[in-house]
Amino acid sequence: MFRRLALIGTGLIGGSLALALRERGEVGEVVGYSRRLDTRLAAERLGLIDRPADSISEAVAGADIVFLATPVKAMDAVLGELATCLPDDALVTDGGSVKGAVVERARAHLSAAQLARFVPGHPIAGRERSGPEAATAELYRGHRVILTPIAENRAEDVARIEAMWQAVGARVEQLDVAHHDHVLAATSHLPHAAAFAMVSSLARLAERYEVFRYAAGGFCDFTRIASSDPVMWRDICLDNRNEILAMLDHYRAELDCLRDMLESADGEAIESYFAEAKAVRDALYPAAQADLTSRPDTRGA
Amino acid sequence: MFRRLALIGTGLIGGSLALALRERGEVGEVVGYSRRLDTRLAAERLGLIDRPADSISEAVAGADIVFLATPVKAMDAVLGELATCLPDDALVTDGGSVKGAVVERARAHLSAAQLARFVPGHPIAGRERSGPEAATAELYRGHRVILTPIAENRAEDVARIEAMWQAVGARVEQLDVAHHDHVLAATSHLPHAAAFAMVSSLARLAERYEVFRYAAGGFCDFTRIASSDPVMWRDICLDNRNEILAMLDHYRAELDCLRDMLESADGEAIESYFAEAKAVRDALYPAAQADLTSRPDTRGA
Repeated sequence: MFRRLALIGTGLIGGSLALALRERGEVGEVVGYSRRLDTRLAAERLGLIDRPADSISEAVAGADIVFLATPVKAMDAVLGELATCLPDDALVTDGGSVKGAVVERARAHLSAAQLARFVPGHPIAGRERSGPEAATAELYRGHRVILTPIAENRAEDVARIEAMWQAVGARVEQLDVAHHDHVLAATSHLPHAAAFAMVSSLARLAERYEVFRYAAGGFCDFTRIASSDPVMWRDICLDNRNEILAMLDHYRAELDCLRDMLESADGEAIESYFAEAKAVRDALYPAAQADLTSRPDTRGA
Repeated sequence: MFRRLALIGTGLIGGSLALALRERGEVGEVVGYSRRLDTRLAAERLGLIDRPADSISEAVAGADIVFLATPVKAMDAVLGELATCLPDDALVTDGGSVKGAVVERARAHLSAAQLARFVPGHPIAGRERSGPEAATAELYRGHRVILTPIAENRAEDVARIEAMWQAVGARVEQLDVAHHDHVLAATSHLPHAAAFAMVSSLARLAERYEVFRYAAGGFCDFTRIASSDPVMWRDICLDNRNEILAMLDHYRAELDCLRDMLESADGEAIESYFAEAKAVRDALYPAAQADLTSRPDTRGA
């Protein structure tokens, strides 16, 4: 499929794509650059890449596909450098979880010809562990990848990026950039923010009430995503701030509705409200319904 | 341990206790009453009880331990009838998830002597499935049971109830009634309300934006508990209304803080906020840290 993949960022996201493509014989050679020397040497040692490069320009030389797998906040510098060295025939795609900010930076730095060959994407996968040691060839199997092609992209280049992701087991969909950021704010960014806030909310009570001794089952599930990487989530909040604020306001309004129902002890309204929510969720995750078992309290003392 | 257990409510909670005590040889005979005939016949057929009773008075006759395992809202009627027929030497305990409302009804109906023998309790267990078919002897193993003894209880009676729960594998703790309701509001009731609200919030957007197609990982975890029984949760909200309202206000204030940080794009504050929440949660669930793996999107199409 590709002759040479240049990985910019050799952590979980980039490393897993490289492993998956290599395992399936879809790439000839992989050259990897990461800002830190130890990261790119680890990537080489772990077999994610064939050789490390000491700069972005060294990494992309001779590449026909470039994957930008750095944190979104690093994209500005990365795109700035890429603009000076991207081979004329290389396709570029990325793995950033917010698309608007990435596309805006790409438009700022890349030439028109380069921009046409940049197909923005977002693989919705990832474990809360990170780094090259966490990479696995199976990371994307069964996962969704959202491509957000821009007007400048040619259909055949979008198709090649789609085929790349499908080759590693992902299901590819397309959204426009703004819709992507809106949808991710609603289905991922807001829930993460709300989970962090729930843990924090309880922590403020905890000193006085030892509430955490009883934080079992429901709380564990609800807050699982609050164990995610705070740096990554800080960046997502900054990069998708407007959408997340809109979703947060939407959620607060919902909580206000619920508060009113509780305040007036309106049992019928509360029951309908919960029943509708249950119906929606059960329709979303039918396979998961069988999985609703209680868990023993796994905490010690 | 006991000669005859009278089960009032032969569903998951009562049925599982009966099975567990029987399996361990801790009870001689179990008589069960449920409002519906088919439920108590099912309990007999499934071996949860030795024989069904057609009324509460028939069930408790000759019993030395009575377990009230009905929904909290049924407790008023149950306690009213129990007051007319409770044997003089029978201990009573319950499984209601809200204690204040139950104790208040017990004080309204039971005589002083009867009240002294009523040791309120809350086994924190349960699957989202219910009914006698769901009962299992292992339901309480490794789970916490919170007893909320009242001033009238004798220490030796509290100890007997504690021993009963320990015999079926539970870890027993004691809290006073108000503290119990406060803690459960914070660690269980609010998270459930917040999860229902999150699903509902997204559902309002869904018609316009097909957001649900992308509702994977984080949303799935956050909203798992929104697949819980809406009737049970309606009753919990009504019975623990004041505490839940207080927690809801506390949570909304927390979301307001977060909103302010986002509004002002304060990256440092956001990162600290998330990092503190992560540290708290990781300390709560150390075993769960290894479990943070991504899930393939299990939804069809």
